[in-house]
Amino acid sequence: MTHILVTNDDGVHAPGLPILAQALRAEGDVTVCVPEHNWSAGGHVKTMHKPLRAWDAKLADGSPVTVTSGAPSDCVALAILGLIKKPVDIVVSGVNAGPNLGYDLTYSGTVTAAMEAVINGAAGIAVSMCVPAAAAELAYQTAAKFAAVAVRSVLARKLPPGVLLNINVPCLPEEKIRGIRVTRQGLRVYQDELVTRIDPRGKPYYWIGGRPPEGILEEETDYWAVSQGYVSITPVQLDLTAYDTLKAMREWNWGEGDTHA
Amino acid sequence: MTHILVTNDDGVHAPGLPILAQALRAEGDVTVCVPEHNWSAGGHVKTMHKPLRAWDAKLADGSPVTVTSGAPSDCVALAILGLIKKPVDIVVSGVNAGPNLGYDLTYSGTVTAAMEAVINGAAGIAVSMCVPAAAAELAYQTAAKFAAVAVRSVLARKLPPGVLLNINVPCLPEEKIRGIRVTRQGLRVYQDELVTRIDPRGKPYYWIGGRPPEGILEEETDYWAVSQGYVSITPVQLDLTAYDTLKAMREWNWGEGDTHA
Repeated sequence: MTHILVTNDDGVHAPGLPILAQALRAEGDVTVCVPEHNWSAGGHVKTMHKPLRAWDAKLADGSPVTVTSGAPSDCVALAILGLIKKPVDIVVSGVNAGPNLGYDLTYSGTVTAAMEAVINGAAGIAVSMCVPAAAAELAYQTAAKFAAVAVRSVLARKLPPGVLLNINVPCLPEEKIRGIRVTRQGLRVYQDELVTRIDPRGKPYYWIGGRPPEGILEEETDYWAVSQGYVSITPVQLDLTAYDTLKAMREWNWGEGDTHA
Repeated sequence: MTHILVTNDDGVHAPGLPILAQALRAEGDVTVCVPEHNWSAGGHVKTMHKPLRAWDAKLADGSPVTVTSGAPSDCVALAILGLIKKPVDIVVSGVNAGPNLGYDLTYSGTVTAAMEAVINGAAGIAVSMCVPAAAAELAYQTAAKFAAVAVRSVLARKLPPGVLLNINVPCLPEEKIRGIRVTRQGLRVYQDELVTRIDPRGKPYYWIGGRPPEGILEEETDYWAVSQGYVSITPVQLDLTAYDTLKAMREWNWGEGDTHA
């Protein structure tokens, strides 16, 4: 039977976690292994300078969970390396309470858990909900349902090595979703600002603040799809080589040391 | 005059940092802004849930540095958003004491600093030395010299939007380097193992252990180039879309909700 590892980057108390685990129990055996606390925008982490702890607990619905002191990617590595005593076929990471669109992918703890799965030879799927709405249980149900659809497709069709799926689901009840679009990574323009404040002792401290990023509405991108009410599914690869640029760069004259000429 | 921001992920005490900053002073005005401590394998971080501190200090050679409590990518964001009162043209991150090859790119703090530069509209270059050798000052000189070569080329030729350079330099004196190769991201096979230990109170704790990753020797990859004594320069893109897979996936039957048919 398919063994599905569920993890997330919002930690063990995230409301979307038990809903996702429950939806996936129809697709296989489900094990849940998650970080103790929130790792949002925490990037792809491999904890090597300190040891990790892991312990058994219960989710809000009473189902079992293994909690770790590591990052989402650490949870996946620990589980696959043997903390969970059963080979993992597929890792599903989510439901993240917020979108992972455009350049968000480079920061996203949710996505890095799926990256870690792929690096360790399992399939990987990241699932995010497009509006942070902690109370929107209905929308988590929608996201969990489409995660199950994706799991079925991935098990049936297989993804190539080094490729994971990044799924973003509009925060809508299921009947309002217009369908699934396979998309490319779009562009969101970050509008970050430096916010300087003075602490009670007269010393400055800094926030990376500003308004939320604005998406560029190009057709067939992740951002476009969710803005139109579609579920966006983007295949993401771990080969980051810019092949077009590579070709051009071989014609550059690098001066000293150039060995392409 | 070109304004170069130097950062790293090994923190303010890294021996390669003053050597890199000094080598780049021939190419433009240099500002150094780095994390207080080591962030290796820390991933792409945007610190949003807590404020950051920043303060002035001196590097080991007496030159000025701004130190922050954030990650490498936070240093870049803070500097570009206004902590450094001068527009940044190019960010050079390094010299990392260890390689960033293959899937390392998805974890590397050194590389994420260059990603953050590109996301914020500056050019980005990551520089790593291929053997950890804290005392090998000569090899840091080599890495710093090729960083300067890359800065000159990038300023002269410009990189396309969303593309950075990932440079790996063999740990050799300059005269032993065979030249520069423009490469693609290779594959390293991680050989991680779960190491379980018992603490003095009888409770288990876990290390992600095992031998270092082994590279696959495919020609024109980053790993191949440095193993042959070349400086490897890989153009890296922030569009992670797997375009080949995307095309194939549009033919999949997703069952419920499929709107590609």
